[in-house]
Amino acid sequence: MEVVKDPAEMQRKAEGWRREGKVIAFVPTMGYFHEGHLSLMREGRRRGDVLVVSIFVNPTQFGPQEDFERYPRDLQRDLRMAEEVGVDVVFAPEAGAMYPPGFQTYVEVKDLQEHLCGLFRPGHFRGVATVVAKLFNIVKPHVALFGKKDYQQLLIIEQMVRDLNMDVQIVGLPTLREPDGLAASSRNAYLSPEERKAALALSRSLKRAEELFSNGERRTERILGEVRSILEADPLLQVEYVELCDPRTLEGLRGEVGKGALLALAARVGTTRLIDNTILGEVDSAEDNAQGQDPQG
Amino acid sequence: MEVVKDPAEMQRKAEGWRREGKVIAFVPTMGYFHEGHLSLMREGRRRGDVLVVSIFVNPTQFGPQEDFERYPRDLQRDLRMAEEVGVDVVFAPEAGAMYPPGFQTYVEVKDLQEHLCGLFRPGHFRGVATVVAKLFNIVKPHVALFGKKDYQQLLIIEQMVRDLNMDVQIVGLPTLREPDGLAASSRNAYLSPEERKAALALSRSLKRAEELFSNGERRTERILGEVRSILEADPLLQVEYVELCDPRTLEGLRGEVGKGALLALAARVGTTRLIDNTILGEVDSAEDNAQGQDPQG
Repeated sequence: MEVVKDPAEMQRKAEGWRREGKVIAFVPTMGYFHEGHLSLMREGRRRGDVLVVSIFVNPTQFGPQEDFERYPRDLQRDLRMAEEVGVDVVFAPEAGAMYPPGFQTYVEVKDLQEHLCGLFRPGHFRGVATVVAKLFNIVKPHVALFGKKDYQQLLIIEQMVRDLNMDVQIVGLPTLREPDGLAASSRNAYLSPEERKAALALSRSLKRAEELFSNGERRTERILGEVRSILEADPLLQVEYVELCDPRTLEGLRGEVGKGALLALAARVGTTRLIDNTILGEVDSAEDNAQGQDPQG
Repeated sequence: MEVVKDPAEMQRKAEGWRREGKVIAFVPTMGYFHEGHLSLMREGRRRGDVLVVSIFVNPTQFGPQEDFERYPRDLQRDLRMAEEVGVDVVFAPEAGAMYPPGFQTYVEVKDLQEHLCGLFRPGHFRGVATVVAKLFNIVKPHVALFGKKDYQQLLIIEQMVRDLNMDVQIVGLPTLREPDGLAASSRNAYLSPEERKAALALSRSLKRAEELFSNGERRTERILGEVRSILEADPLLQVEYVELCDPRTLEGLRGEVGKGALLALAARVGTTRLIDNTILGEVDSAEDNAQGQDPQG
């Protein structure tokens, strides 16, 4: 496995592979790997002749009050894990190489960013779209893999790729969960044992919504009310949003929901911001141990 | 010569060429070709194994009060001219194929657009950057050619390419001029004979500024004053801006100017908006018949 720091060198490598007819699979990450990252890499390994993983804690997607500085980093551990999964190249640029003095160009997906996390993290998705556009131009992937835990991010990247005619196939993979249901996230490292326990309310509330839905409940108010009450029952937990939305446009749904609606939420546990989501009536993004659902729907 | 309308087909072709190791040269245009376009194509012909020219009157770079509807179009004439110059493929998509329903992604070069034309045409350079990003992803050029008459556009595209790590070499070519000095522009077709004559004040004023500069004048106020007074002498002509700026950042210059400063102007002749510019002390972007300058100077 090779580690490349220089964007120009990475780009030359990628162009060389394409010239040789090799399929490039790409997993962009901020590092501090967990099972979710590894599942993306394993799928990338299956799909590509060459597998590239980027590790870059992207400053432009953090707000001034957010956790850029303390975001967990452990490059040596990440490199060991990447090597084990069979990654060919880890691209790990410095911030100064990605954003040299005078940098001023941004990619923005206008409508999709006006919902959910976009409302609470101004500038976040502009930073995400911009860095992913840059990474795609550097790594030149045929296929890029993203996790569905960051559902809005996945949707925004798919839209950007379509709108800007990027020649990349985007693959979204199911959220990986701990045995107790907590969605895998690098930010879980912030949680104290007590907070870790409180954080379980997120997946538990989604599971309860799935249960209600599979029992025939369709009223958004009832479903949202139940989710909120589970989250608000825990004093360590502060809800940021709980929304039922159209899974393509992210417009909020009112009245009744059908199969395929997105239930998304964000909450703070202490100072740690966590997100989670599920597609109602779909097995793949619900909890791995969700019951009472028919996969054929 | 082939005419391709479908972006996906164009992209497949381009990817095929790259796989074969062919160098793709690209000239993006809005059509209604003049000598300026042809000079870009001829240079593209020299630099590429394959030469692609796009013809697309891009709606997103026109303001609501601007001339999108009446912008001159003559595809048949353009195709004949392109064929004569040795173009391999003309890419001429429909607006609906470039901006399908739900389109919402934009590329913006933040600082460079806050000057000159950017102040008078809000959204214009966002539209330019976005469509050029799209065209680059579709045509996958190794080298793309632009005219220096649209100096700010050229600078913005160079910045976008650098900031987003696009793997394209940008080449800027000198402004082509009519024998009487008028900069070649598709919009010259709007001019009545009387307006055509009035429009000569633009290049004449730049030439006068070059003269002053080569005679040792360095005071911005004196140079700008002289240019303005030439433009304002014609009652058919309405000045939009006359600026001396840093040729890389477009920041306005005050006090004294040195060699290499950009002198840029925009004016309306009747309802037609025209622009022109020169780099003080440089031969290539001054008038072809400018005198008294040392090319090595």
